[in-house]
Amino acid sequence: MSDGLIIWTYDWVPEGPRGLVRDVRLRWAAEEAGFDYEVRTTPFEDRSEQHFERQPFGQVPFLTDGDVTLSESGACLLHLARKSDVLMPKSPAEEAGVLQWVVAALNSVEMVSVPWWFLEVTGAKDNGLTGWLDSRLAHVETVLSDREWLVADRFTVADLLMADVLRVPRVRAHGDRPASESFVERLTSRPAFLKARDDQLKHFAAADVARGEA
Amino acid sequence: MSDGLIIWTYDWVPEGPRGLVRDVRLRWAAEEAGFDYEVRTTPFEDRSEQHFERQPFGQVPFLTDGDVTLSESGACLLHLARKSDVLMPKSPAEEAGVLQWVVAALNSVEMVSVPWWFLEVTGAKDNGLTGWLDSRLAHVETVLSDREWLVADRFTVADLLMADVLRVPRVRAHGDRPASESFVERLTSRPAFLKARDDQLKHFAAADVARGEA
Repeated sequence: MSDGLIIWTYDWVPEGPRGLVRDVRLRWAAEEAGFDYEVRTTPFEDRSEQHFERQPFGQVPFLTDGDVTLSESGACLLHLARKSDVLMPKSPAEEAGVLQWVVAALNSVEMVSVPWWFLEVTGAKDNGLTGWLDSRLAHVETVLSDREWLVADRFTVADLLMADVLRVPRVRAHGDRPASESFVERLTSRPAFLKARDDQLKHFAAADVARGEA
Repeated sequence: MSDGLIIWTYDWVPEGPRGLVRDVRLRWAAEEAGFDYEVRTTPFEDRSEQHFERQPFGQVPFLTDGDVTLSESGACLLHLARKSDVLMPKSPAEEAGVLQWVVAALNSVEMVSVPWWFLEVTGAKDNGLTGWLDSRLAHVETVLSDREWLVADRFTVADLLMADVLRVPRVRAHGDRPASESFVERLTSRPAFLKARDDQLKHFAAADVARGEA
């Protein structure tokens, strides 16, 4: 059986991560590209064997696109980007630039910012990652001080992902980086982001009602 | 001016990271695929503006391939993989599987294991990332207990990268994961890995001689 594009997320999540669950990245990309897509869910509690088969770490999102299934939000974004010039221009040099910046967001920024955030939230004294985070964010600030978009003088999925990495409230409130702040502001004002985030918030609010919690 | 495939690394690094600097990933992939390639260097000390133009975080490796330049080892691996069936089969489902596992290595495993390692090395008491690392490594162990290769029942660049992430000595020595250990053992016995690592070690040893330190 083959369906169209389906973004899989949790049926419900606690209040804290709402608006930040990574399915928002895929919703946002799909909205920018104008794809038809559907959102389906897998239980947040009691994660099934079938869930682990599709997402080996028991997380979301994962994507089904016809006969293709894949997880990892960064991988899903690259998969979507190959289907739309809006998300990624197709000249070899520009495609390489998008690939570089998507992986930079995942493996040079988020590799420090997410564990730093985790340590902040779990109440570590003397967060041992702060110096490293500051250095990584400073390099991004240098780049964004010099240009409006990361690649190809236009919006690409690399900007979408970097903005999603930088907009985490604790990261955004940490330090003073005017170019990064203006970048996040600009990207998260896009109608496609606003719709994606609002759709996610509505989805989880409806789940509260279904659980009798609202 | 357009050249062939060039892997850029540092001219020299201290003893500690030798054998682990991420240019080894690209050397390994190029050896597996049988690509002609050349290794060139950028100074480890006094990193130039030109270095930051090619690698915005001042790190290595980066790659030049004709008119294309890109950084981030994960992005470089995906770029190389698209040029060789040895590294990535080309059916849509298998290609998606490779993409998923490459990003999983970068953003689900390394996003925890590298900061954990950083905190260990910098002497944090009560490493606040240990529980999270254990959980991520346990999920990988579950997958590797069940199959020899991550994707497509054969070697791909996803195995190469996951093995490179898991072979970090501190990570490898932490906990007991027989399937992961056997996977790392198997992957790092491949002639292409051994040549890549030896070439890197020789490169840095020669740099010691040039600096008068050997």
